[in-house]
Amino acid sequence: MTGKIICTGLGPGDPELMSVRADRVIRSARHVAYFRKAGRAGQARRIVEGMLAPGVIEYPMEYPVTTELPVDSLAYCEALASFYDDWANRLTDLAQSRDIVVLCEGDPFFYGSFMHLHVRLQGHVGLEIIPGITGMTGCWNVTGIPITWGDDVLTVLTGTMPEASLVRHMQAADALVVMKTGRNLPKVRRALAAAGRLVDAWLVERGTMPGQRVIRLAEACDTDCPYFAIVLVHGHGRRPEIKTGGAR
Amino acid sequence: MTGKIICTGLGPGDPELMSVRADRVIRSARHVAYFRKAGRAGQARRIVEGMLAPGVIEYPMEYPVTTELPVDSLAYCEALASFYDDWANRLTDLAQSRDIVVLCEGDPFFYGSFMHLHVRLQGHVGLEIIPGITGMTGCWNVTGIPITWGDDVLTVLTGTMPEASLVRHMQAADALVVMKTGRNLPKVRRALAAAGRLVDAWLVERGTMPGQRVIRLAEACDTDCPYFAIVLVHGHGRRPEIKTGGAR
Ligand SMILES: C[S@@+](CC[C@H](N)C(=O)[O-])C[C@H]1O[C@@H](n2cnc3c(N)ncnc32)[C@H](O)[C@@H]1O
Ligand SMILES: C[S@@+](CC[C@H](N)C(=O)[O-])C[C@H]1O[C@@H](n2cnc3c(N)ncnc32)[C@H](O)[C@@H]1O
Repeated sequence: MTGKIICTGLGPGDPELMSVRADRVIRSARHVAYFRKAGRAGQARRIVEGMLAPGVIEYPMEYPVTTELPVDSLAYCEALASFYDDWANRLTDLAQSRDIVVLCEGDPFFYGSFMHLHVRLQGHVGLEIIPGITGMTGCWNVTGIPITWGDDVLTVLTGTMPEASLVRHMQAADALVVMKTGRNLPKVRRALAAAGRLVDAWLVERGTMPGQRVIRLAEACDTDCPYFAIVLVHGHGRRPEIKTGGAR
Repeated sequence: MTGKIICTGLGPGDPELMSVRADRVIRSARHVAYFRKAGRAGQARRIVEGMLAPGVIEYPMEYPVTTELPVDSLAYCEALASFYDDWANRLTDLAQSRDIVVLCEGDPFFYGSFMHLHVRLQGHVGLEIIPGITGMTGCWNVTGIPITWGDDVLTVLTGTMPEASLVRHMQAADALVVMKTGRNLPKVRRALAAAGRLVDAWLVERGTMPGQRVIRLAEACDTDCPYFAIVLVHGHGRRPEIKTGGAR
């Protein structure tokens, strides 16, 4: 028997928001791998709590570094590169004789860590990817307000970008999503203010997860913003006028 | 008994990509509404084929106009506005005594027709929205290539925008999604060429649906592009270098 590596998106956090296919694959998996920070349970693992079959073998892939090194340092890049190299090799070996299910928050192909394995595994082992609802889709849904209408332009940014680029992109788009907010929240807030978009911004922490918080960014404080946090500005594009003043 | 209106995202097309919650709600629904063009089966209805319970009551909401009037004409806007007004009233009446499930392709809050009902229904009737995998997420997955890495900026555009705006936004972003391609494909192609992005563009028709086609845009011809079509340019952002030349 030859195995393959199946990476499945888990959606934004609520286990009922994973796809029917992801749900089935995870419940029948015998080997499950996922990323986590050393010493943490890991968000991906937490989402599937109660779903894994008895006797499943788990492979926590623990990041070698987190906040000790600057993300643009050579040392950080090299540590991560070897980490991905090693796990790509290990998963390839394992997949010689079994299927391995890799868990990934949101959608695997949207800023996902799995992509760094994917680029190393491709062509060397059977691969299957199961899409998931992205974190941002979960987040705009919990605000209860549509994100884009008509011809709205939506731009997705990351809080890790330089402040000046953030401002420029924030001025040019109708709707906005800022990923990787966390410790970058003060910078994101300054950029939104400079672009004149701060009053319309929302902060969603842990969207669809336990501990969810949905607030106006203007009312949030800059400290203690968690890793799972997204800033949103909704679009207001073209739409046919309401004639009757709403439903009866 | 008081009912409510539950709008559920269906994901990009493959029924296995709808969420576990959507799947359950649709299978147990007794009243199901969906948009469609007059005389067509409707894509939303097609996705749930085989899932509806026996005896379910269906409410096809048929658009009053499609291609007869220019989308920016007053007549088009007024016809659509009355159409949404009427269905908002009708669904509100129905929901006095029963739950109504409204089907929506992709995610309901992302350029979805349901949003025009939502804005009319809100505050008048109980509402619940179930997120879905967006069409674009399904489409970038079927290309087999991740859409965004590291600090990549992703911009989502619509083929209905003016050509000059398309060019400007295409130049500014790393990764691109162009929704509502269809008859706008020639314009989208010219804009990508002007922005120097045409060589990297993909066209995905009916992503994850029967009849799916994934090709380089440069190899596609401009006629017969279906309504369910998205143009993509993948990002190439920051990523740790591969050291070992891929997995063993
Ligand atoms: C490395 S990216 C992974 C994105 C993921 N693949 C997806 O499709 O959403 C991690 C970032 O996603 C965002 N994120 C993902 N899920 C979220 C959620 N449920 N609530 C808030 N932010 C979330 C946060 O900004 C976080 O910093
Ligand atoms: C009115 S918008 C609705 C978008 C939907 N709510 C979503 O979340 O994707 C319709 C456009 O979505 C895009 N689209 C949606 N699903 C698609 C799919 N499976 N394949 C290709 N294009 C798709 C097409 O560009 C189409 O013109």
